Amino acid sequence: MSAHGGRPTNLPRTGIGTDVHAFAPEGQERDLWLAGLHWPGERGLAGHSDADVAAHAAADALFSASGLGDLGSNFGTSAPEWAGASGASLLAEAARRVRAAGFEIGNVAVQVIGNRPRLGPRRAEGEAALSAAAGASVTLTATTTDGLGLTGRGEGVAALATALVVRVDG
Amino acid sequence: MSAHGGRPTNLPRTGIGTDVHAFAPEGQERDLWLAGLHWPGERGLAGHSDADVAAHAAADALFSASGLGDLGSNFGTSAPEWAGASGASLLAEAARRVRAAGFEIGNVAVQVIGNRPRLGPRRAEGEAALSAAAGASVTLTATTTDGLGLTGRGEGVAALATALVVRVDG
Amino acid sequence: MSAHGGRPTNLPRTGIGTDVHAFAPEGQERDLWLAGLHWPGERGLAGHSDADVAAHAAADALFSASGLGDLGSNFGTSAPEWAGASGASLLAEAARRVRAAGFEIGNVAVQVIGNRPRLGPRRAEGEAALSAAAGASVTLTATTTDGLGLTGRGEGVAALATALVVRVDG
Repeated sequence: MSAHGGRPTNLPRTGIGTDVHAFAPEGQERDLWLAGLHWPGERGLAGHSDADVAAHAAADALFSASGLGDLGSNFGTSAPEWAGASGASLLAEAARRVRAAGFEIGNVAVQVIGNRPRLGPRRAEGEAALSAAAGASVTLTATTTDGLGLTGRGEGVAALATALVVRVDG
Repeated sequence: MSAHGGRPTNLPRTGIGTDVHAFAPEGQERDLWLAGLHWPGERGLAGHSDADVAAHAAADALFSASGLGDLGSNFGTSAPEWAGASGASLLAEAARRVRAAGFEIGNVAVQVIGNRPRLGPRRAEGEAALSAAAGASVTLTATTTDGLGLTGRGEGVAALATALVVRVDG
Repeated sequence: MSAHGGRPTNLPRTGIGTDVHAFAPEGQERDLWLAGLHWPGERGLAGHSDADVAAHAAADALFSASGLGDLGSNFGTSAPEWAGASGASLLAEAARRVRAAGFEIGNVAVQVIGNRPRLGPRRAEGEAALSAAAGASVTLTATTTDGLGLTGRGEGVAALATALVVRVDG
């Protein structure tokens, strides 16, 4: 791992990403999409996108690690062709852009923070969906905040992600 | 670090974990446990567990990096033998499971976010306690949120952690 | 990357840092400093320091990765010579201390969370300013929280950072 007198070369790079979406107002029909999965019977999250905070945080962590901007600069108002894309599609395209820029993706780790849905029973399924989208290992975990803060009060769902990438030699 | 035409092999893996616990209600006797330490005279955090957010976030970051589920899937209601375990015990067991699955632990970094307790005077002691539990380097830092949010209003304490692990060759 | 029967050696280390500052009260003249940049016309953040949450989170992530304490233990009340220092200066000094302790800095990734300012138009400029301060690659991204929480209500701005460092051989 070392060269030239002990200086490490080609270190991997770390990145970080978060996302938050509010639950849709009562009475508004809105499907829940989370971790690349559809959750029938669960209250949906609001947003112009599908509001998949797990996929969005994962994509942002990949951009963050690679120095390729963020979700807004890649898929925002200047890129209307992505306006209606699913979170899984955005994650797949983020991974494609990261590789096209010369990086290999090590892994992505996403933690979903919120009271609902109960992620446990579908955690492995969500990991598989996000990993398929990224073409790399994406781990998925979940926690709650003991009734405190925006997720504890049930106002929305948050996700927090880290990613590790490395530049591939010519 | 490279093989096969420049593709890196056996990259380390990154993980993330957070935890939040509310302070116990006024008048309720409850000891504070944080970063594997007992804090006499400080208001305790509520929870079925010892509510050690630093140890919990560290353990979840290890699981997240390794793809071994999360605190809930490892130590939740389906594993009643861990119901009363201390945060330090959970961190030690998480580290054991990560190694048993074939990983070496690089390090864990935990940041405690809250007004109380003042972590500074016991920061090094907490680092030592968490590192002993994990059998690996765990760094411990602290910050506040300028009076804002759940920690700034003094409703509870949060912790945020990252971990780095690597698969050990056969 | 391996030696001695497959055990990896000299793994990089991961670190984490967050910071939050409240907006200055209405009517109080206060400049906004964020990501090492001055933002004319934007409402300032309050604090004894320049309240540059992006630079502070980046510095804390470097300390966290390196086990050198945190912003408080390095630049707090016991170090009054740093009381008035800019966030960029603190980040530069943190990077200097990390290198003096024998580490090379891989990269730092910072995400700013808040409604204002709109970071996009100056994202690249902020990345350049923070990277110059750290003497290493610092990526800068931004997001919002859908109107929820302390940043969504416009009470303040938060930043979240990860860093990767590695010990340099003798």
